[in-house]
Amino acid sequence: MPFRKVLIANRGEIALRVHRACQEMGIQTVAVHSTADNTAMHVRLADESVCIGPPPARESYLNMAAILSAAAITGADAIHPGYGFLSENASFAEMVEAHGLAFIGPSPEHIRMMGDKIAAKDAMRRLGVPLVPGSLGALESLEEARAVAEEVKYPVLIKAAAGGGGRGMKVARSAEELEEAWRVARTEAKAAFGDDAVYMEKYLDRPRHIELQVLADTHGNVVHFGERDCSLQRRHQKLVEEAGSPVLTGPERDELGAKVTAALRQLGYRNAGTLEFLWQDGQFAFIEMNTRLQVEHPVTEMVCGVDLVREQIRIAAGEPLGYDQAEVRFNGHAIECRITAEDPESFAPSPGRVEMYHAPGGLGVRVDSALYSGYVVPPHYDSLVAKLVVHGATRAEAIARLRRALAEMVVSGIRTTLPLHQAIVADPEFQAGDYTIHWLERFVAGMRAA
Amino acid sequence: MPFRKVLIANRGEIALRVHRACQEMGIQTVAVHSTADNTAMHVRLADESVCIGPPPARESYLNMAAILSAAAITGADAIHPGYGFLSENASFAEMVEAHGLAFIGPSPEHIRMMGDKIAAKDAMRRLGVPLVPGSLGALESLEEARAVAEEVKYPVLIKAAAGGGGRGMKVARSAEELEEAWRVARTEAKAAFGDDAVYMEKYLDRPRHIELQVLADTHGNVVHFGERDCSLQRRHQKLVEEAGSPVLTGPERDELGAKVTAALRQLGYRNAGTLEFLWQDGQFAFIEMNTRLQVEHPVTEMVCGVDLVREQIRIAAGEPLGYDQAEVRFNGHAIECRITAEDPESFAPSPGRVEMYHAPGGLGVRVDSALYSGYVVPPHYDSLVAKLVVHGATRAEAIARLRRALAEMVVSGIRTTLPLHQAIVADPEFQAGDYTIHWLERFVAGMRAA
Repeated sequence: MPFRKVLIANRGEIALRVHRACQEMGIQTVAVHSTADNTAMHVRLADESVCIGPPPARESYLNMAAILSAAAITGADAIHPGYGFLSENASFAEMVEAHGLAFIGPSPEHIRMMGDKIAAKDAMRRLGVPLVPGSLGALESLEEARAVAEEVKYPVLIKAAAGGGGRGMKVARSAEELEEAWRVARTEAKAAFGDDAVYMEKYLDRPRHIELQVLADTHGNVVHFGERDCSLQRRHQKLVEEAGSPVLTGPERDELGAKVTAALRQLGYRNAGTLEFLWQDGQFAFIEMNTRLQVEHPVTEMVCGVDLVREQIRIAAGEPLGYDQAEVRFNGHAIECRITAEDPESFAPSPGRVEMYHAPGGLGVRVDSALYSGYVVPPHYDSLVAKLVVHGATRAEAIARLRRALAEMVVSGIRTTLPLHQAIVADPEFQAGDYTIHWLERFVAGMRAA
Repeated sequence: MPFRKVLIANRGEIALRVHRACQEMGIQTVAVHSTADNTAMHVRLADESVCIGPPPARESYLNMAAILSAAAITGADAIHPGYGFLSENASFAEMVEAHGLAFIGPSPEHIRMMGDKIAAKDAMRRLGVPLVPGSLGALESLEEARAVAEEVKYPVLIKAAAGGGGRGMKVARSAEELEEAWRVARTEAKAAFGDDAVYMEKYLDRPRHIELQVLADTHGNVVHFGERDCSLQRRHQKLVEEAGSPVLTGPERDELGAKVTAALRQLGYRNAGTLEFLWQDGQFAFIEMNTRLQVEHPVTEMVCGVDLVREQIRIAAGEPLGYDQAEVRFNGHAIECRITAEDPESFAPSPGRVEMYHAPGGLGVRVDSALYSGYVVPPHYDSLVAKLVVHGATRAEAIARLRRALAEMVVSGIRTTLPLHQAIVADPEFQAGDYTIHWLERFVAGMRAA
């Protein structure tokens, strides 16, 4: 049965994003908010709102009891957790369901399974999802090491089986380097962990981060919506995301998609999920699965013409997807810039009063933001303040559109990363799609030096 | 050869629209502006700007010599006229070309031909475009009148051949009414014009306004981009436009499109054009052709994934379209609301300072507006200040999206028609697509009475 009222257990642009989907579906919304967010856009626009405590987040947006009370008081019949906060908290999902409400997300079991990164890798390996190639267990001998290295091709990484933190870890870039790496890794492993067992993985020295968006309903239908390339990261924070990846071909996407959807069908997974991979030289290596909506979901929506939040809500209400993989179309190219309230050079947070907020407009431009002129960005939360998303028939067209949209956008009164995005989008390597997960760190260092 | 620099001979949202297309194509822009538009958005964003005189428009935006001087001074190699102002002025197009510049629009001959509404109808009739059915010339006898009426079906209109202004014009709703209408029309015609010759047209008592968007290159390629339904008009001013029409089927669109593109190919037409029709009971009657970009072009762009301004510029630079009719796809449904700076009840102009401007965002929402917080809407020009355009997979989805986007939009400090649009979109008849060109006038009258 469709939901009548949904509580949105989040804040900022994603709370607004969920509110928009609900409103378009004729579902009433309940905003919850901290005392720091009294005047936030998601509170202003929601049909009802409940204050659930002060900052920091653990006193409010992470306060499960307060959120469940708000749901009970307002008579909500489902909770959308957004991303971050409680979105991947299996206990919260359990509590929501124990209170007779629908959790708009996967089952608590799958949240828990994917939260344990080692268990997730084991499960995905069993289910036929590609992981980084290497020896499955400890290597018995240098000869075996040599054989595995020949198979997965150099460079390879020898890692302590008991290890972590980089100790007992050596790279061999060629057969000549293998014996030395083998010897040093085992010696370090023995010294550090009292165990000289080592195993081998293909070393990815210039990978891209490519992830696959999936939806699964409660009737056994699993469909993927292609990939996003999120290689542009700084300290594991994504700054720019694209759909599709500049390096992936259609058949490669189809092949990965078939493996992933088969795995999730076997797992009985439901709702939205994203499988993250490292990609290099045509090979995918599963890293982890996020059992929630991603920040960068809009680029997929622009390319596939799907409303992922609407689909999440429909799935949680028990509706079947109503389409199959063959009906999912990939049209053009989309790019998202995450604009944060940070100094664009030091990345120091820059909360405060927004004097003027002016969103760019026109053809192919989408802005997801809870900013408005006069809004005060509180210092307590994530610094993301706006997502600028563009769509074009080609990647070149999307880039040209992004450049002109960035030039139109105004956020004054606070510092933002707008200038950094302008520099990235103007860079020839970015324009050529020629980047790895290390590119942005070097680019930022270069900008600082200049 | 692609243009290097384009002068935009317009103001407001359409000047910004053309600027955006140019910027995305790597073309520099020259804004021209009146002294009342010194701080306008199109002036702020253009690469160069030239003041061409004071308001009213005849001293600046209609001042051909000033605009051509601005083009010469800045070294522009083409002029885009937008809509209104000089966009359908054949002499201006001639002068532009005489100065060695490209006019981004049709040939002066075609502008002139379509500017003469009677000549345009004659041309279109010859070229096989449907006009309102009736007697081609004067009726010889009541018997002939009866025969024509039986053929085109009642109700019919008997009109003075020499007439105008409604005199000598009578409606016959059935065969019983025909003799009386024939007699009165001839008597009135004789009295008013000294000539009792009358002719007959099918009387369209509840027509819709449906128009067809066309692009033609200079290599003989003519393609249409489907229809827009612009029936929601007040005093011949369109307020809400849709693509496609709620009443038109795909085969009907294809049939009309084939006739229109064949006609324009025969005519040797080039660049963008729109053929406007009345439509009733499955029949189209050509009214006129607009030889320029239309205000409502974005709904077509949203549904077809085409950038019409980019195409205009490419065509003017001599490029071939590069695609044929079969490649034009119609995807989902789009609706545009024209937000004007007017009192939503009296329609009195409401210029002045915009305290806060906040554009709606999110999936499927496009805003074309030159507004910004603090901008002063001058009293001298058309009152259109923003076009809110939404796209959805279905008409129902587009309407739901439009309602939530209208709820998010803020234009404070001046009065706007936002409340009227909210009322229209909430109306069950609008939602059912059940309206004619008379619907809005009645709706506005009903709102006033309530």
